[in-house]
Amino acid sequence: MTLVSPRPSPLTSRLQPSPPVTHGWSVIARDLTEVEVLLHAEAASEVPLAQAVCGAVHAAGGKRLRPALVLLACRALESSAPDARVTGAAVEMIHAATLLHDDVVDRSSSRRGRVTAFARWGSAPAVLGGDLLFSRAFGLLARHGQGEELRVLSTCMLTMCRGEIMQNVHRGDLEMTEGAYYDVIRAKTADFISACCRVGAMRADASSVTIERLAEYGMNLGLAFQVTDDLLDLCGDETEIGKPLGGDLREGKMTLPVILALRAARPAERERVKQIAGKPVISRDEFEEVRTILYAYDAPARACLVAEDLACAAIRALDPLPDTPARDALVALACGLSSRSK
Amino acid sequence: MTLVSPRPSPLTSRLQPSPPVTHGWSVIARDLTEVEVLLHAEAASEVPLAQAVCGAVHAAGGKRLRPALVLLACRALESSAPDARVTGAAVEMIHAATLLHDDVVDRSSSRRGRVTAFARWGSAPAVLGGDLLFSRAFGLLARHGQGEELRVLSTCMLTMCRGEIMQNVHRGDLEMTEGAYYDVIRAKTADFISACCRVGAMRADASSVTIERLAEYGMNLGLAFQVTDDLLDLCGDETEIGKPLGGDLREGKMTLPVILALRAARPAERERVKQIAGKPVISRDEFEEVRTILYAYDAPARACLVAEDLACAAIRALDPLPDTPARDALVALACGLSSRSK
Repeated sequence: MTLVSPRPSPLTSRLQPSPPVTHGWSVIARDLTEVEVLLHAEAASEVPLAQAVCGAVHAAGGKRLRPALVLLACRALESSAPDARVTGAAVEMIHAATLLHDDVVDRSSSRRGRVTAFARWGSAPAVLGGDLLFSRAFGLLARHGQGEELRVLSTCMLTMCRGEIMQNVHRGDLEMTEGAYYDVIRAKTADFISACCRVGAMRADASSVTIERLAEYGMNLGLAFQVTDDLLDLCGDETEIGKPLGGDLREGKMTLPVILALRAARPAERERVKQIAGKPVISRDEFEEVRTILYAYDAPARACLVAEDLACAAIRALDPLPDTPARDALVALACGLSSRSK
Repeated sequence: MTLVSPRPSPLTSRLQPSPPVTHGWSVIARDLTEVEVLLHAEAASEVPLAQAVCGAVHAAGGKRLRPALVLLACRALESSAPDARVTGAAVEMIHAATLLHDDVVDRSSSRRGRVTAFARWGSAPAVLGGDLLFSRAFGLLARHGQGEELRVLSTCMLTMCRGEIMQNVHRGDLEMTEGAYYDVIRAKTADFISACCRVGAMRADASSVTIERLAEYGMNLGLAFQVTDDLLDLCGDETEIGKPLGGDLREGKMTLPVILALRAARPAERERVKQIAGKPVISRDEFEEVRTILYAYDAPARACLVAEDLACAAIRALDPLPDTPARDALVALACGLSSRSK
């Protein structure tokens, strides 16, 4: 993780250089190829605009973390169940749908260095494209029939919506507590990551104890990911993460470093953050002012430590699993939190 | 149906006065009460905004046509299956979700005389509230476990999205054919109405032949409803339908009367419709100009005839069903197409 800091902290170098998150994914390379084939097939539509929207969101799609987690969880339990690939494609479609809708909600014009569907085609195709992907995902799961899997993923989708709504409620809320922050990121990110591991283990017909272990791994991994993500938005390297820093601050999203700093900050500093957070345009100087406050209270390094602790907890949850390349890949994922491609 | 026409047509009085669409619903009164209880319970949320959005869309909710169809289809097959109520609540939630999203897509500020969630709270709560209702609906269906039902409804949700996207593609398209119009309304409205009847019959453990009969009833009913709806938006009575006329025209939506009139219209008339359709503000005079063109080619009466034929086809599909109050209510629904509360 590259933290670009006015006052370099010794902690920031700990996770650097980080291993690539895809380390060890060769064990699921064929699975992931099949997931791509399924995604491509499911994006097909006789309505060209629908196909364009779904195709674009898949093409922009990062490293397929969620399908990889389904497959790694399943393969780490020494199961070769082919239907795990269907589940993998379904979770990626649900993820892609949430991205389409999030861009409408946040009015985002770029994601991972690409123009969003919202910015390119407007809110109608983005909203409807998301609905299309949701229904395709549930259709796929219903056709490959595991009721419990559907229950897990629909509950999880519900939780994600709740998380997004909670986040919106807390926009610009300088009183937001650390607890409320964890509630939001658990709901909007970690619960889904956890569900991916859970359904992967379910596809392997694992015992309930083992399923819970993998779900716990996913929950901690997801929290660690989001904490890291939020930290990088304030203190990362723009060229590395592929978008301008400070997006969360502009949107008034309270993230861990800000919450930690505000708790200790002097009234004048709080007032400054209040004036700046949520401004549609934040100048370079204003952004540096906020960062100076964050670093004054060592908030980035403390957030970094939180992420590390969570990653360690994720790895510990894997203790009882047999020693397999898939397990190694899950460990490597928790170690390599710095990637921006979720 | 009250058609307010500059040149009254003898046909327009045929469906007038119409029986209330809820005629005969007493047979499912207890079922519908239980559906309300389920809707209320499923709208509950610890996030007040989420609860407000879901509550508002249910409160605005018209006559619960879709749950009623599930229940009437089931009861008309002499089944008292209590789980049909769960299915009824789920289809209403899916319907409410599509309304929330449609209002974002169409940027509508009012629906059934009420301010929309989109206008009141903005696109974020409307998009997320819709997603919340979708996931609750699928969660409810997954918990009450009928895989086939989930397949039918997820496919149907997919078709609705496709229909909405197709409709958007055809906005302002004066070349839209009658066939393309039926494709759009089948996808965006009738397929779901048909699916409600289908899953109701499935809940009654009906034979596949009987299931297809009820699905056919629903398909024709749904098409008739949409044709009527579109007709009323051009030629209805504002006080009766509870919103200003001409909404579709302002949004550039091509509907059956316009398509029928344009096919026969002179170039100068086409040109006038082209200039007016899709204008964000259409003056009273412009609207009357378009209506005069429609009536010149007898388009409203012809569209009305189409709706009547479809309603008759719906009723014919019920021929083999036993004579029950629920069957009577289904027949009455097809006869009473004039209601604006879908």
